[in-house]
Amino acid sequence: MLKHDSIRAIIWEAPHLKLLDQRCLPGQEVYQEYAQVLAVAQAIKDMVVRGAPAIGITAAYGAVLAAKQRFATEGSGWRPGFEADLEILGQARPTAVNLKWALARMQAHALNIVDEPYGELYQEAYRIHTEDIAANYAMGEHGASLLTPGQGVLTHCNTGSLATGGFGTALGVIRTAYAQGKISEVFADETRPWLQGARLTAWELVRDQIPVTLIVEGAAAALMKSGQIHWFIVGADRITANGDVANKIGTYHAAIVAKYHGVKVMVVAPTSSIDMNLSQGSSIPIEYRASEEVLNLGNIPVAAMGAKAFNPAFDVTPAELIDAIVTERGVVMYPSASKMMTHLSDNIIL
Amino acid sequence: MLKHDSIRAIIWEAPHLKLLDQRCLPGQEVYQEYAQVLAVAQAIKDMVVRGAPAIGITAAYGAVLAAKQRFATEGSGWRPGFEADLEILGQARPTAVNLKWALARMQAHALNIVDEPYGELYQEAYRIHTEDIAANYAMGEHGASLLTPGQGVLTHCNTGSLATGGFGTALGVIRTAYAQGKISEVFADETRPWLQGARLTAWELVRDQIPVTLIVEGAAAALMKSGQIHWFIVGADRITANGDVANKIGTYHAAIVAKYHGVKVMVVAPTSSIDMNLSQGSSIPIEYRASEEVLNLGNIPVAAMGAKAFNPAFDVTPAELIDAIVTERGVVMYPSASKMMTHLSDNIIL
Repeated sequence: MLKHDSIRAIIWEAPHLKLLDQRCLPGQEVYQEYAQVLAVAQAIKDMVVRGAPAIGITAAYGAVLAAKQRFATEGSGWRPGFEADLEILGQARPTAVNLKWALARMQAHALNIVDEPYGELYQEAYRIHTEDIAANYAMGEHGASLLTPGQGVLTHCNTGSLATGGFGTALGVIRTAYAQGKISEVFADETRPWLQGARLTAWELVRDQIPVTLIVEGAAAALMKSGQIHWFIVGADRITANGDVANKIGTYHAAIVAKYHGVKVMVVAPTSSIDMNLSQGSSIPIEYRASEEVLNLGNIPVAAMGAKAFNPAFDVTPAELIDAIVTERGVVMYPSASKMMTHLSDNIIL
Repeated sequence: MLKHDSIRAIIWEAPHLKLLDQRCLPGQEVYQEYAQVLAVAQAIKDMVVRGAPAIGITAAYGAVLAAKQRFATEGSGWRPGFEADLEILGQARPTAVNLKWALARMQAHALNIVDEPYGELYQEAYRIHTEDIAANYAMGEHGASLLTPGQGVLTHCNTGSLATGGFGTALGVIRTAYAQGKISEVFADETRPWLQGARLTAWELVRDQIPVTLIVEGAAAALMKSGQIHWFIVGADRITANGDVANKIGTYHAAIVAKYHGVKVMVVAPTSSIDMNLSQGSSIPIEYRASEEVLNLGNIPVAAMGAKAFNPAFDVTPAELIDAIVTERGVVMYPSASKMMTHLSDNIIL
């Protein structure tokens, strides 16, 4: 029996957007309230909310706030200011394509609005939000269908309710497969530097009473060597037309090690994470974040003064390391450009 | 010009052993004093001192303290108590073979002592200490000879003055090659969970004015993909007769990723780290440490209550992933059982 998912990281409580501040988890469950679009852009940048689908949904609600503000101050001339606000929102983080995808959808929807834009844009944002949840449940089923009983899984970063509209992508598959009795054990990379695995994924799984064992990233190879892991299941921030996948730093690292041990690699993401405009992963803009994320723990320096850090937030896993890409439409086994194209045009399992 | 190495983690200041408390670095440079062998065993267990060669040297001085205490209380009947103390010291940590190697040497030396044992045993411990430093300088030269100018290197954990009698194994090679102008850039894995890279290696390199850039373990694949890394240079806690290498957790992981990118793998360790009694790495006892090392940062919990952790302190890199093993005797390229045997019997570069 699939447990109902009770975590909501993004809540619209008119006239405010409320975000569960993921920087405070698991210690504190604090919601921040936003009435201004620029504050929403900053919240995305500062990782109050993170996870590609969650960023997209948040930006969609941010667009609602933008339209509301602009209409209040500029009346029927609200549109140019609104477009400028979307531009700023779109630059909050560069790697996840869902942000731009959601904003493009809001922008397209806004074109048909002649009157006060709030109501209609809110409906569109809400659709983006609920469609994402539905997509997650569908991905859960599609992904779980690939597992046989007794499988050990490893996941990376956080791809659960906190990273999406609710339920999750890779973690949605894990939730579904666990409920189906297919998973013997869930391991999670702690996911340095931001510790999304330790702070967020463990928190979600403990709430769901799914036993979870954390490892440092470096222990994945030894764990896989021991034979306890059958699937490495992760999300995606952007998938290119050939099936290359940008995801949280360490994903590519672990995917290589998975291949070496014959562990299968599953990438789970909604079609809104697919960017058919980019032919391959090397074109994906990678975000580099502040050195302090590596040099400090909390706000306490752990490295000697004078040491530098190289801190890419994402890496790119080439399609040849991936066994299956799972979207709400189904499964693409051994992804390639032609299979990705077919997957997006037809609703069939390849 | 090779800089003189000013860091001493292990100091004999009769009648005490002083250890630089590595748990406090880089924030504080605190020395702990030891007059009792059991306290030395606990210090090894608690990682006041760590690094395979440093553990061996510390244990040798611990044996001196044991003999001194036992002779003071039991006179000429000191030997059985001394042997019992060595047994306890030998169990402080299981993976690094240097601990047992140093104790076997102290024990053998003690057999020839008829009178008060302190002076002669101190001389033997001091020889172990100074021989290790000399071995490090020799390894530095042998290892550096493998590098061509303009090489980017990545290292893991700490293998410098803090991990040895002084100067270092892998870090000794990096120091020597840097002084020879061969290294363009040094990257260091932060090395979770204990952060030896961030806390110790960066501290040593900053003191030596060698620029160092830290990465989280998961970023190594992206860094290697960028073409900036030519050598992955690490130490060893135990090398088996076939050339398999136990080293800090994450080494095996990174070695697989290095191979995938054509980055060469160099293991640097004194012959005291070689265990010819074990035919292969799967026989090496791996230490599992407390879950709290992963679940907490400092003493603050970062994971949700109820999450578990799997925390092996070491992993095993098979010989086939290793391009060169460097000891004080020279270089073993593409190690195998027969090459290791020859290396230990002859003093030639294979």
